[in-house]
Amino acid sequence: MKKSPGEFELIARLCAKLPRSRRTLIGPGDDCALIARGRSAQLVTIDSMVERVHFRLEWASPESIGGRALTVNLSDIAAMGGVPTACVVNLAIRPGLDGRFFDRLYAGLARAAATAGVDIVGGNVTRAETLSITIALFGDAGAAVLRRDTARPGDEIYVTGTVGDAAAGLRVLSGRLRPRGATREFLIDRYRNPIARLKAGQRLTRIRPAPAAIDISDGLWQDLGHILERSGAGAEIDSAAVPLSPAYRLTLGDDLELALSGGEDYELLFCVRPGLSERILSRRLGVAVHRIGRITRGHRAILLDRTGAQQRSGPRRGGWDQLRGST
Amino acid sequence: MKKSPGEFELIARLCAKLPRSRRTLIGPGDDCALIARGRSAQLVTIDSMVERVHFRLEWASPESIGGRALTVNLSDIAAMGGVPTACVVNLAIRPGLDGRFFDRLYAGLARAAATAGVDIVGGNVTRAETLSITIALFGDAGAAVLRRDTARPGDEIYVTGTVGDAAAGLRVLSGRLRPRGATREFLIDRYRNPIARLKAGQRLTRIRPAPAAIDISDGLWQDLGHILERSGAGAEIDSAAVPLSPAYRLTLGDDLELALSGGEDYELLFCVRPGLSERILSRRLGVAVHRIGRITRGHRAILLDRTGAQQRSGPRRGGWDQLRGST
Repeated sequence: MKKSPGEFELIARLCAKLPRSRRTLIGPGDDCALIARGRSAQLVTIDSMVERVHFRLEWASPESIGGRALTVNLSDIAAMGGVPTACVVNLAIRPGLDGRFFDRLYAGLARAAATAGVDIVGGNVTRAETLSITIALFGDAGAAVLRRDTARPGDEIYVTGTVGDAAAGLRVLSGRLRPRGATREFLIDRYRNPIARLKAGQRLTRIRPAPAAIDISDGLWQDLGHILERSGAGAEIDSAAVPLSPAYRLTLGDDLELALSGGEDYELLFCVRPGLSERILSRRLGVAVHRIGRITRGHRAILLDRTGAQQRSGPRRGGWDQLRGST
Repeated sequence: MKKSPGEFELIARLCAKLPRSRRTLIGPGDDCALIARGRSAQLVTIDSMVERVHFRLEWASPESIGGRALTVNLSDIAAMGGVPTACVVNLAIRPGLDGRFFDRLYAGLARAAATAGVDIVGGNVTRAETLSITIALFGDAGAAVLRRDTARPGDEIYVTGTVGDAAAGLRVLSGRLRPRGATREFLIDRYRNPIARLKAGQRLTRIRPAPAAIDISDGLWQDLGHILERSGAGAEIDSAAVPLSPAYRLTLGDDLELALSGGEDYELLFCVRPGLSERILSRRLGVAVHRIGRITRGHRAILLDRTGAQQRSGPRRGGWDQLRGST
């Protein structure tokens, strides 16, 4: 497909000033990028953000959209305990957006990449009817890899940070929730500028046996389901233990719906053998963690209320979504 | 973003039966794929095929669209002389296409991957308003890498195969050209089922110094321009030497427009020091090659007619598109 001069100029300008490390032997400008051989096995992930499906221009700045497009990929590397190294970017551009927009989008992307130590080694620009950003990200695996299929009955289930804030922020932006002041700002910021838990993921790999882990992108309940499906186990979740931010509580009270089912928090959910405490794990991982339940021999996830009574249960194990097939 | 069960089921089904090599330590089904460390530096490329921009459903089977989406990436690895190893696939799906369509698309993709020795190690499915397939492909670099910026005055310019067939095939499909019988079938097939010149690219790395090379995706004239821009050189092209297929000649006679400006042939254009012949190179590379001109100290590409008179020239060097920035 013959490219228009505009497409070439755009990608050239966007890539012209990207910093890069010694690892990147050939960066943007040839048929492929060339990356020095790593010292460890390579992690690879790909994710896409599509306008009007994953974001709206009226709800976030171009910088935040660019940064977020990388963060959702960084979060996958975090969930495996890896160190992100390099990425390639496919930008599908639609009419009606000017060069300034893409400069700002790439600025946000480049800032997120620099913060995470990631080289943007190549890219492609294509015309489309919808704006989308697709990023393939690579990383070095640590001494151990955090998998989804290694949760065992008796494991305690933890999550980093708080959950539900991003989903609440999205509802603030769409006008369905109306908190004010700092509460409003906090929730919107959690949606616009999520943080991938890279350090926590890397530190989790030092625990033996390596914890099962997943990042919460689709919502705690759904992502827990992926762990259970892949591990062939069940779980009990203590509803009172699900960590909520003050802003979430101020806005939604004790309603756990968004905390359990809203996605895009990019916190980590992980399962470790008993014997570690919230305090010890929070210190080791450098982020507050909360124990929300335990892995069982059952076939489903069960939500327990404060009295220990069953509130809600997931589908039988076989009914869980089988994300991305089987290993 | 919460995924619908349909999205999970689709990617699970598509990835369920993919073969994979020992290199792939963790395939589809976790947050990232895990690939064993390679023995050489890693090549990486990303490319996207968008419905109504790069393909139309009425012009190709789902299998051919899937195969082609990988081939355009394989061609980038070929143009660096590498050995493709693994890829991740982002599928943006739109309403109106059923599971059978995606099964067939993935069958074509899987067949192309198997032929090239590539593992499909991960994927992502997202909703969108337009169908698109974005693939990030990795490869092992050979002993040498074929770059765009190493052409030197005096180098002879060669191309593999014939050029312009795919562009002619596209015009047959859109009704703008009307050849018949085998001629029609040949041109359409060249558009639908291009072949990446992997073996030829790998064999080119054995030549010293390593040839400058690029794959012809945007059209011979534009892609030659990328070599000239990156190498800081000019070129003379002998119009009579541009290799045309019998089908092209039957349909378009001596009109070189599509051969020079039509893209998507995925042949290789490369530049070697004088002293090798078409016969020797064809034998070494395992594919017919033709010498079409030479690199000059000039600042532009010049097309010469049979008498050696100038027919057409490219823009001044600085005016060439700077694909993907500078290395």
